[in-house]
This record gives sequence, structure tokens and C-alpha cells, in this order.
Amino acid sequence: MNAPIASRRRPSPEALAAVLGELEARFGERAVVNASILEQHGHGEGLADAALPDVVVYPHDDEEVAAIVRSCAAARVPVIAFGVGTSLEGHVAAIHGGVCVDLSQMNRVLEINAEDLDCRVQAGVTREELNADLKGTGLFFPIDPGANATLGGMAATRASGTNAVRYGTMRENVLGLTVVTADGDIVTTGGRARKSSAGYDLTRLYVGSEGTLGIITEVSLRLYGVPEAMSAAVGQFDDLRSAVQTVIVAMQMGIPVARIELLDEVQMDACIRHSKLEGYAAKPTLFFEFHGTSASVAEQAELMQQLAAEHGGGAFRFATAQEDRSKLWKARHNAYYAALALQPGSFGFSTDACVPISRLADCVLETRADIDATGLTCPIVGHVGDGNFHVLVLFDPHDAGQRARAEGLASRVSMRAIAMGGTCTGEHGVGIHKLEALVAEHGKAVGLMRTIKRALDPLDIMNPGKTVPLEQATGDGR
Amino acid sequence: MNAPIASRRRPSPEALAAVLGELEARFGERAVVNASILEQHGHGEGLADAALPDVVVYPHDDEEVAAIVRSCAAARVPVIAFGVGTSLEGHVAAIHGGVCVDLSQMNRVLEINAEDLDCRVQAGVTREELNADLKGTGLFFPIDPGANATLGGMAATRASGTNAVRYGTMRENVLGLTVVTADGDIVTTGGRARKSSAGYDLTRLYVGSEGTLGIITEVSLRLYGVPEAMSAAVGQFDDLRSAVQTVIVAMQMGIPVARIELLDEVQMDACIRHSKLEGYAAKPTLFFEFHGTSASVAEQAELMQQLAAEHGGGAFRFATAQEDRSKLWKARHNAYYAALALQPGSFGFSTDACVPISRLADCVLETRADIDATGLTCPIVGHVGDGNFHVLVLFDPHDAGQRARAEGLASRVSMRAIAMGGTCTGEHGVGIHKLEALVAEHGKAVGLMRTIKRALDPLDIMNPGKTVPLEQATGDGR
Repeated sequence: MNAPIASRRRPSPEALAAVLGELEARFGERAVVNASILEQHGHGEGLADAALPDVVVYPHDDEEVAAIVRSCAAARVPVIAFGVGTSLEGHVAAIHGGVCVDLSQMNRVLEINAEDLDCRVQAGVTREELNADLKGTGLFFPIDPGANATLGGMAATRASGTNAVRYGTMRENVLGLTVVTADGDIVTTGGRARKSSAGYDLTRLYVGSEGTLGIITEVSLRLYGVPEAMSAAVGQFDDLRSAVQTVIVAMQMGIPVARIELLDEVQMDACIRHSKLEGYAAKPTLFFEFHGTSASVAEQAELMQQLAAEHGGGAFRFATAQEDRSKLWKARHNAYYAALALQPGSFGFSTDACVPISRLADCVLETRADIDATGLTCPIVGHVGDGNFHVLVLFDPHDAGQRARAEGLASRVSMRAIAMGGTCTGEHGVGIHKLEALVAEHGKAVGLMRTIKRALDPLDIMNPGKTVPLEQATGDGR
Repeated sequence: MNAPIASRRRPSPEALAAVLGELEARFGERAVVNASILEQHGHGEGLADAALPDVVVYPHDDEEVAAIVRSCAAARVPVIAFGVGTSLEGHVAAIHGGVCVDLSQMNRVLEINAEDLDCRVQAGVTREELNADLKGTGLFFPIDPGANATLGGMAATRASGTNAVRYGTMRENVLGLTVVTADGDIVTTGGRARKSSAGYDLTRLYVGSEGTLGIITEVSLRLYGVPEAMSAAVGQFDDLRSAVQTVIVAMQMGIPVARIELLDEVQMDACIRHSKLEGYAAKPTLFFEFHGTSASVAEQAELMQQLAAEHGGGAFRFATAQEDRSKLWKARHNAYYAALALQPGSFGFSTDACVPISRLADCVLETRADIDATGLTCPIVGHVGDGNFHVLVLFDPHDAGQRARAEGLASRVSMRAIAMGGTCTGEHGVGIHKLEALVAEHGKAVGLMRTIKRALDPLDIMNPGKTVPLEQATGDGR
């Protein structure tokens, strides 16, 4: 079914020189080969996996992105899209060299249609910038992966985060895209209607494609009315199973909680120290947020408190004022830094298992036992309403044994989730680190992904080596 | 980028004889060439567009579907999937002949995972069969396109219907699929986790692909808890604009109504007569349904009543008992038959515009004026919470002038929606009737759809001639 495709290698010096010459002529000082800029663009925030691009270019509009891709296509030079570099799976590492397209100067909010609850932004707008622009409209964009990522990057990795249990992920909230294809064409997908049955769902195909099928240059998004009322609550439990069981029952009952975050005792200990949270114990803890009318928020909180009490949880502590809620969520967002502080000098990375809710307690508890057996210090945090949790794996980068144990643990976390009917990545993506796990999870479907990659990027220039393994692996069709 | 592809034509008698021989040998009495069976499988419920298949086969499992497709692939004979034949855009018409794969005997509910709110069914299970199976679990499957369609067909056309405003469409509610590809392979997509960033979103690519990329044989679906409380209400208005404006404001406020259906005065008149609704006037009318806790249902209903009153609507009539709600929704579901009864002997078909909510009043009112100018009798009904509405176009099939006016009207409805930033089809699909509208709506993106079709079905045997025009049209790239 597939035409043979040349396997990817670093571009030849001649090809690269040709592209560099064209980029410098067109972009002048916006085509940069300075070493520290290359270094900054060679990695995200995941496991050390830097691989430098040959040049970083800062386009201002779709046409400029298209011109870059056309130059690269003519010379078969790799093109890697870059937002703010917060991705976790090596998505931006230029493992075959090439041109890094930094979209941070494409940061205009193009339209806000308040009456339709939608907007259109350039790919380099960050989620915090968008929400700042929305101030005063009564609307907000809820998807919150923690990092202040760009909306283009969030679309490309199908990001989600703390609010997804109520508002969905980028999959549900992107209405349409503008994409520069592998041959440098500018194509718009989707539309502004809330639903459509008109043709193949190209929008969903590009959401999560990690720059391997084209570069996302504009994103149209659904917005939501700022809820009339919001309150946050914290519940603490004597053991991990009770906390997780509380979540499972809440989800089965359909309580429309906006956020349910788990911090295990190791993570809670770290957060108490790092964020100076007062009056909390280093015990398994759930952070909740409720959105709705005043009556509905009160009703949700009461139901959750009842459920928690039935599972041995203590009385909730509420935070209704904006300031108190912010302090709590800031502590949650800083969980990664709090964890690093547990073991100064260590390196940390995050796993990303997501399982059907009925398996969540088993998966978390087996993982906790697995961690403890490794002797590593690893907190667990999670967007548990979705069945998604992260192990923050800390290790000493100078200790080869620790690193091997850390990587072994991460691999087992992925495989355990897959064996329980879940996924190796709930929200971080595949990048370069999860190619094997992808094959374990999707089997023959990886063959279809490969066919699509080859059809839409026949020269294999779009972020090569990521997302879909082009060479066939065992257990995977075609 | 694309290899040339032979244009499709009817299979040669030799090719067909080879396939027929194989099918009769394997399927015996389940391979049928009886004229009345062929006739029944040659059309859906849309505009008269029957085109008979050469044979109808009734497989029982994925392997049998795969065997049929492999026979067809070897002989380059078209394969058309068929559920219960309720589609509206000619999806099942065998316009190039070939093999109709009737999935109605693949009607087993394979698993219900009540604790995870999901299930897996064979493609031939209808939505009513699934909901009957769910009785006693406390769960239901909300997507309701009116017809008792199969879940495979609903996935293939990205169906939605009355509950979509609250629960989403098939796009949001299919967790995964089993698909028989164009080369007869059996592939599973997606998974049971609520979210995943693992690779390309093949599930969403197949949802809405109308059998043109493969045959859906199993569907995994999200389920929902039966709400603690439900109530239905009917509000009547003196004019169409007031009714539509009420909906627009409700959606902008984010009131989580489960159903909001508009019936214009022509449709309401038809329903009053056909379904013997008592105490209603032939005026623009909204049917609502509210789901939630008792408190939340009461709150939603009160808010909606206030809004309606602000727009000149009358006092709501409530139906809380199951029996009364059923009567109302039955009347809504029978709108099509009620409309046909307005003009005995006429033929009817439905348009399917969907626009951003802010344009809904303009779109509905301009369409009403357009209808009135044609002199045809055409009620308007709509899932207006989504911005989606249907004109039921009635015409005398023996009057060529009426037919031309009917088709002209339908085309203008599509183009008006597209011009307002909407879509030519909110939920019916493209089939054979909306190929031109698809190009008008998606422009160059149709070129990407064509590339995907060619990559996944290089012999063009999967429901050929539907969904994506393979020959390039004006205004569409590639």
C-alpha cells in the first residue's frame, strides 16, 4: 500500500547551505544561528534529549511559515515547530538537524467572537495571554496544562490538564486550524459551527500530530462563560486508596466537578514545604474546584464532602475568595518544582498514564508499590477525574544506575496503563520517548498512522522521527 | 503529491462474477441477489437516488467483513456498508454497483462497563437496542438523531440530533472503533481512557468518513448516568425571531439545557394535526428538556422561562411524567411524517444548515423568506441550541418545476450557512448530494481529504463516489 520512503538522515551541508541562504535573505536577523539560541531551541522540559537545530527562524505570519517549509521541502531539510519549549517528550529536539520555526512572534489574538463563545489566535499566543485578552468579556479558555504553553503547541500535543474533567481537552475545544502542509500550502480546517458532518475531520487529525503532518499556524477555540460561582476545596485522606475511590465514585455519579487533583503523601509533603501551605498534613490529598451557579456549586461541594466522608476523608477546607483559590492552584502548578526540591541536584521527568476510571485505584497503588521498590523518590500527582496521573521521577543524572531504574520505572508505568485498557500518554504526547509504547498500545493501527504520515509528508521533513515510528516494529502491522 | 488513480466505473462482469462466486461459496443464503432485497438496499431516506448493488451480504463478525473486502479488493469491486438505511444523503446508493455489506446481523452488545460509563457494540446495534440493553444499569446513550439508526451508521455519518447541545455528537462520544480497512485488515483504533495523546486520532478520522476509508464493525461509546431528574417544557412565541433569540441568549449564558428544539409555525401546525397535540397554537415553538439534580432542573427551567418571557414568549407548559415527555418527543420525532401529511403525495427531503449561534436568527429568517418566495410548503425544525436547523422541503415528484425549485432552495440553504461561517451539514453528512457544497465550504482542505482517501483506499473501492470528490473541482486545491 505504501511507496517506499527514504529513511531520514541529517541534511547534506549543501542542502543546508541552500536553505540557510534563502532564510537569511528573506528573514535577515530573524534567522538565527547563534549557539545559545540553538541550545535553547534544542529541547523541551522532559528528559535530557537536546539535539540542536541548524537555524532558528521567527516568522510573523502564515505566508512566512509557508515560505520556510517550501525552502525546506525543496532541499529535503527537516522543519520543527517550536512554541515556548515546555513539551515533555522531546517533541522539539532536532534529532536530524534542520530548521526550527519559532512561532513566539506569531502572538496575535485575531478575533474574539464573544456572542459565539469562540476565538481565533495565532499559534504563538499562550493560554495566559489569551485569558488576559479575554478579561472583561465574561469568557475564559479553560484548558490548563500547568505550563504557560502556546495554544499552537497545546493543539499539536492534544494537551489538557486540570480542567479537562469538566471542559474536555484540546481535542474537544479546537474548532478549526490553519496549517502549513509539508509542501508549503496554507490550508484551513474545521469551521465555526458547533458541529459539522462535512467531510473528514482534518482538525482532529492535526490536533495531536505533534508537527509531523504540518505546522499549525492559527487555532480557533471554544470559549466558556466565567462561571457565576466558583469554589475550591481540599480533602485529606489517611490512605491513597480511599482518596482514589472517592474520585472513582464521584465520576461514576457524574458530579460535574471542574477540577479533581490528587497529590499523594510524597507530593503533598513537597508542596507544603515548597509553597508554605499551612494547616495541611503530608497525607494523600484531593484538590477540588466547583463551577456553576451558586446553588449548583454548593450542591456539588456538599455531595463531594459526603462522598469523601464515606471514604474516611476529613472535613473539606474551602477556598472561595479568588486569592485563596489562586494560592492553592499555584501550589498545585508548582508541584514539579516542589518535587525537585525534595532532592536537590536531581533531574526529574514525568510519566503520563491514563486508565479507565474503574482501574485507577489499582493502577495508582501498583505504581506506588513499584516506585517504593525502586528506592527512588517519586511523588504522584494526577488529574484523577480523567483517570490520568503522573509520577514525577527524580534521579541523580550522574548516577547511571539511578537513571536506568528511573527509565525502567517509566516504561513499566506506561505498560501497566496499557494492560489496564488505558494509554501510555493522557496529555503529553509521544515525541521521541513513547514510540515503543505507542506500538504496544495501538498495534496495527500504527500502520494506518504511518500510511497517513507518508501520504501527507512524503519527504519526511515535518518533525521527523517523532510521534509515529516509520520503520515497522514487531507487533505492528504493515 | 498524489499518484494518479484510475477513475471509478462499474466493475466488469468478469470481476463481479468472481466476487459473487466467492461470496456465495462462503456465505450461502447470506449472499442475496433477490431483486426486492437489492432495491431495499439501494437507497436511504433522502432524495430519490436509488442505485442497486449487485449483491447484499449479511456478515456475522469482523472476519467475515474482512473476507468480503478482500474479495472486493482483489477484483476492484465497490463495497458499500449498510446499517438500516436511514441516511439522508444517498450514502448507501450503489452508484457504481458492487457489494452491499448489510451489518444488521452484527447486532450484539459486546460489553457494558457500567463503572467506567462505556460500552462496546457491533456496528449493527441500533441506538434503541443499546438503550434497551442498558435498562437497569442506570446508564443511557444520549445521541438521538430521530431515526432508530445503527450505531455503526451513526459513527460513519458523525450523527447527532436532539441531545447534542448537552452531550455532544458522535465525534465526542465514540471512544474507539474496529475498522476493516480497504485491504481487508481488521484494525482497532482509540481506547477506553477518557483522553489520550498517543498518536494520530484515527477514531475521529473514521467517524464521519461515511464508509469511504473502511467499514466500521465495532463501536466503543461513552455512556451517561440517567439524570436524577428530567423535565420537558414547551414555550410558544408570536414570531420566529423571538423564539430564536431566546435560544441564542440561553446558549450565550451557558444554561446546560439537554434539548432545545425549534418548530416553526408551519411545522407546529403539522405536528398539532398529525400527533393530536392539544392546547397548542400553530406558532413558532420551542421544546426544551432539562436534565440534572432536582434542584438544577428546577433552576434551569426557571431561567429559561424568564428568558423566554423577556422575548415575549408565553408561559411554559411542563411535562415531567415520563409518559407526557414521551408524547411530546414522539411528536417532535414524527415531524417529518407530519410535514409529509401537509401535502399528500408529495416527496420530502431535509436540508441541514448549522451556523455560529449569533447568526442563527439571520439564517433562519432569511431562509424562511426564501422558502416563502418559492411557493413551496416547507416547515423548519431545528436542534437550535447547536445552531443547526432543517428545512423539510416538500415537492410533487411529478412536477419538474417544483423539483427544480426544491433543489435550488436546498442549495441556497447550504450556501447561506457557509457564507455565515457555518456548515452545509451539521449532522447528515455529505454522501452524493453535498459534494459541491463540501468544496465551497472547505476549499483547499478538500485536497487534503482527497490525499487521505487515496492513501487509505488506493483502489477506490470503499463506497466510491461519496464524501470527497476525487476529481478536482474549481476553487479546491490539489
